[in-house]
Amino acid sequence: MLTVLTVKEAQQRILSSLNGKRTDMEIVPAMNLLGRVAVEEIVATEMVPSFARSTMDGFAVRSTDTFGASESIPALLTLKGNILMGKEPPGNLEPGEAMAIPTGGMLPPGSDSVVMVEYSEVLGNQVAVYRPAAPLENIIRIGDDFQQGDTVIPAGHVIRSQDIGILSALGHLQLKVYARPRVSIFSTGDEIISPAEQPKPGQIRDINGFALSAQVLEGGGDPQYRGIIADEKEELRSGLLASFDDADIIIISGGSSVGTRDVAVKVIDELPGGGVLFHGVSMRPGKPVIYGISGGKPIFGLSGNPVSAMFSFILFVRPVLRLIQGLPAFPAFVPYVEACLETNLSSPGGREDYVRVMLSGEESSGKEILLRARPVFGGPGLLSTMVKGDGYFVIPRDQEGIPEGSKVKVFLF
Amino acid sequence: MLTVLTVKEAQQRILSSLNGKRTDMEIVPAMNLLGRVAVEEIVATEMVPSFARSTMDGFAVRSTDTFGASESIPALLTLKGNILMGKEPPGNLEPGEAMAIPTGGMLPPGSDSVVMVEYSEVLGNQVAVYRPAAPLENIIRIGDDFQQGDTVIPAGHVIRSQDIGILSALGHLQLKVYARPRVSIFSTGDEIISPAEQPKPGQIRDINGFALSAQVLEGGGDPQYRGIIADEKEELRSGLLASFDDADIIIISGGSSVGTRDVAVKVIDELPGGGVLFHGVSMRPGKPVIYGISGGKPIFGLSGNPVSAMFSFILFVRPVLRLIQGLPAFPAFVPYVEACLETNLSSPGGREDYVRVMLSGEESSGKEILLRARPVFGGPGLLSTMVKGDGYFVIPRDQEGIPEGSKVKVFLF
Repeated sequence: MLTVLTVKEAQQRILSSLNGKRTDMEIVPAMNLLGRVAVEEIVATEMVPSFARSTMDGFAVRSTDTFGASESIPALLTLKGNILMGKEPPGNLEPGEAMAIPTGGMLPPGSDSVVMVEYSEVLGNQVAVYRPAAPLENIIRIGDDFQQGDTVIPAGHVIRSQDIGILSALGHLQLKVYARPRVSIFSTGDEIISPAEQPKPGQIRDINGFALSAQVLEGGGDPQYRGIIADEKEELRSGLLASFDDADIIIISGGSSVGTRDVAVKVIDELPGGGVLFHGVSMRPGKPVIYGISGGKPIFGLSGNPVSAMFSFILFVRPVLRLIQGLPAFPAFVPYVEACLETNLSSPGGREDYVRVMLSGEESSGKEILLRARPVFGGPGLLSTMVKGDGYFVIPRDQEGIPEGSKVKVFLF
Repeated sequence: MLTVLTVKEAQQRILSSLNGKRTDMEIVPAMNLLGRVAVEEIVATEMVPSFARSTMDGFAVRSTDTFGASESIPALLTLKGNILMGKEPPGNLEPGEAMAIPTGGMLPPGSDSVVMVEYSEVLGNQVAVYRPAAPLENIIRIGDDFQQGDTVIPAGHVIRSQDIGILSALGHLQLKVYARPRVSIFSTGDEIISPAEQPKPGQIRDINGFALSAQVLEGGGDPQYRGIIADEKEELRSGLLASFDDADIIIISGGSSVGTRDVAVKVIDELPGGGVLFHGVSMRPGKPVIYGISGGKPIFGLSGNPVSAMFSFILFVRPVLRLIQGLPAFPAFVPYVEACLETNLSSPGGREDYVRVMLSGEESSGKEILLRARPVFGGPGLLSTMVKGDGYFVIPRDQEGIPEGSKVKVFLF
């Protein structure tokens, strides 16, 4: 139980313990879908667009009628009328005819192309076309966006602004999504007091309860801050059990000392239907991570050190939050900024090292300048390294340091 | 007025028209601060931490008492008692003494170092120390995180999880932040109907109203979708004016055809105390952007084409949203993923080209694989290019194309 795992091993143990657990489903209106995860695939129930449209102001034509047209010998077509926005065209387009059409207007049957206003001229009841129009030029065909039956939103897709747009194009005013995971958050430790109180010597205000709640929110969850609980076996146990029905994930933070860590491990291990799956991960900061499960619910025991707790959240809790709300545990693409390390940096080796850095340098007038990354001074126990830092990069386990001038991938906080 | 600006010129005109306008201020509790922007600098009103703490389980000592200690000749110190979590130590530490201390415990006056449990042993009422302890080893001093008077949160800083953590450490349970900008969103165009309706031939459901509302939300604003308004001068004018008091920014989308664009331009230009500042930007997609101001309020006329409207939002509305909620208009660091372009790509040149791409390839077992970017097939008028795309990259104005295999910076949607 005290074996120290690598970050990857720990992540694998956590994820495989979940057995594909998901939160409940709920129906959410389109306007509130941003960031939510679709339970089911959405298929286009109609063509998008449902009619052929012009992408330019001009004249709907049969392209064959314009072949060979030029400035000197324009094609002369009969102007058959105007197409109005939002209305059906006044009739079919017969050979030798043209209809005026606005951008977004519906093409008349028979037409296959639009000549831009710029290349045409109305002469009485005729239109002179000064350039040949290619078939399909300046038009969007029926179903060019999505054909009926096409997958529009795959199952497990996180809804972005454009997805809300296409849902409204299809008249899909609501969507079945996974509920936001409810995360119960306890702080423990005899030295911890409420942030509303004035600490006596030896006491500190609760940091983790608030910082972890914000991380849960950021990760798409619904944080439920349960306050401070004594690191005493019976109280911890009854507190955890009382929150079980309303929580999908439980986090206890605190108990950094061996004695209190032991209490947390023991309590989690003795919960009904589960036990501690590991205790300790070879990373810096964040080593004393406890992970257990009870009744199928993941339970994390994070360090009382806020920096450790926050990195443990990023590495271990966030993947669970993602997974149970229907996403892959790890995103396929994680954006970063590349920066040049300003100093030599040694790392203990044998564990992953999460280095907080401040970034400087900006792109100026389009010219690209490589950013500079400066490690934030201060030990792993200092929250100021997170507050002053813009992000972090990772020194892998098998590396004992990294030389000045190296390019590093910085993940922004 | 019909001069077409570059993207940068347009951005500069917009930002300089705002005269440092900000939204109102409001007081928000710590738990709800994520993503909000601090109005005022927060200064540490006390030391963080407020007492010297141990970062290890072990013994508080005077480091000078341990100099020269070794496995064979340990330093023998008098065990003076236990320090309890959250309590003051039982007294001062005199020369030759040690006190047991847990991680997070308060150091007794007189001590300057902590010897880890691993390098010490209790022998009756004595502690044998088998290694010299360096001064300040395994301790966090008073104020190591923040000294009283230090800037903790600068003015204009966007609040992240760790910032909420440090605020709670300081007992700062609320913060003065800028209000979320209220953005009125109108859709216009005779072909546009409510997403709740069934379109007749030539009609399409409103996409932009919903997609832009989601973009506003994503950008930290408070979207107010005002529905569909006829692109008729008097109606547009009275609709805009009616929303003025409740909005910090106004967006009209639609009116892609020259005629309706002209109506929007005219209406915005004739609003009291302002006028149109530009009309048209050399970019693809998104050219027909109208920007005006009335009574100090920015008004955007975006294309009816959803792709154009969304990119115009990213390039022009988002910087305004940022600026008026107290942030720099453009973030100093914008994360991206680097990818290898899968095809040759031509670009019209003379305008910035925003290319939607699908990404593929993943990091596998720690080995880094360069992602591949494949442009999404389809014209700039197709929303499916945004829905199928993972992100976009930019081909600058002075470039007429980009060869297969080029490395591009992809900004994720």
